[in-house]
Amino acid sequence: MMSKDEPIRPGERIDDLQRGGLRILSDPAGFCFGVDAVLLAHFARARRNERVLDLCTGNGIVPILMSNLTKANELVGVDMDARAVDLFSRSVQMNGLDGRLRAVHADIREIREHFGSGDFDAVTANPPYHADGSGPLPLGAQEARFERSCTIGDICGAASWLLKFGGRLFMVHKPHRLADIFSAMREHEIEPKTLRLVHSYVHKPPILVLIEGIKRGAAFLNVMPPLVLYSQPGVYTDEARRIYWEEN
Amino acid sequence: MMSKDEPIRPGERIDDLQRGGLRILSDPAGFCFGVDAVLLAHFARARRNERVLDLCTGNGIVPILMSNLTKANELVGVDMDARAVDLFSRSVQMNGLDGRLRAVHADIREIREHFGSGDFDAVTANPPYHADGSGPLPLGAQEARFERSCTIGDICGAASWLLKFGGRLFMVHKPHRLADIFSAMREHEIEPKTLRLVHSYVHKPPILVLIEGIKRGAAFLNVMPPLVLYSQPGVYTDEARRIYWEEN
Repeated sequence: MMSKDEPIRPGERIDDLQRGGLRILSDPAGFCFGVDAVLLAHFARARRNERVLDLCTGNGIVPILMSNLTKANELVGVDMDARAVDLFSRSVQMNGLDGRLRAVHADIREIREHFGSGDFDAVTANPPYHADGSGPLPLGAQEARFERSCTIGDICGAASWLLKFGGRLFMVHKPHRLADIFSAMREHEIEPKTLRLVHSYVHKPPILVLIEGIKRGAAFLNVMPPLVLYSQPGVYTDEARRIYWEEN
Repeated sequence: MMSKDEPIRPGERIDDLQRGGLRILSDPAGFCFGVDAVLLAHFARARRNERVLDLCTGNGIVPILMSNLTKANELVGVDMDARAVDLFSRSVQMNGLDGRLRAVHADIREIREHFGSGDFDAVTANPPYHADGSGPLPLGAQEARFERSCTIGDICGAASWLLKFGGRLFMVHKPHRLADIFSAMREHEIEPKTLRLVHSYVHKPPILVLIEGIKRGAAFLNVMPPLVLYSQPGVYTDEARRIYWEEN
């Protein structure tokens, strides 16, 4: 039997986020979250009184984590899938974050119908990774991992509309798309400003890139030291430990 | 007194390159070389029977090292400064590399007057790092470190002309110009293909980027593990040692 405090439905799961007592609903058949979303939430910055919008939010992992990691006044998560919006809304309620977090059902290609130009100080995005046209959608594949509905261009176009002058876009993506991301950002007046490569091990190629772009920023890219997750198999680096577990 | 084998002039210097007995002439007042050129020569690849051209070659350090590191058939170094061309020519003679290496006096903005389209399999470039317009040229500054005459756009434009279909451009530059380099490459039909960040220490931001682009290549960037030079102050990593000193 489901209690009022645990609004879980058949097939869903509740994960403890190990941070501020936060929990999150996942649906393993469609909306889970990975290390990429956790790293993005830690890479992004938001100040007190700022408004942040997360594109392709899925179960809302990024805004939920950022409710603890930042002082942002308002955190909005947008998804085109009604099931994701429902999942995120129930997680917001479960965590008692109703006043500050909000799920919005919208297609990011029609973002102008939902929000005004320059409404946000920061935008975050953990978009799907596979380029459209790179092959058929595998049977049973999560829509959220494929770029049919949320391309890098869509992300940058939406962010450019949503961000005020000087506002920040934070994105996590695959290293092999870096040139595409820089191109799309500049096409939409977002200047690549900070880059951090994420490696499982320091001697291996990166598995992810974290990128910050500034709306109408000046051209100068800051490349940070690598973010390395493991010092040896099964042993997290100090930095990864600080990201995955709250320090008590 | 200057012997026939040591064609050195007042103010010049001969450095032993610690590789295949190669030596190089430098003019500390104008044409020296740094770690960036050495890393570029090791990053670049050329096969037997291939033709390679080095833009902004200075004293010719990149082609001279590549004469040992590759089997390339022909290595041409281009510079718009006659003193650099003279220095490079005398180093070629000093090393007995006359048949394989050649210095050409040319402005890369007029490269079409000197070489045919698609004449080369690979192009290398260690261009000046400071963006034009970023301030006055400091008194006594080396022209070669300023982008008055050899911008990223000039490099990519020249390389696009010189390279055959599928040919490779290898460039070393500063990390903060990465987005500019990717943009300029794509503008000139050179697709960014490989990226390697060079760090003094693994926990510090990168000091250099090594980039390979392919003339009319497909979009897919391979990002390599970081190249780290020091494990601690004064102690080179194994990889840096292999680059700086020939293994005997």
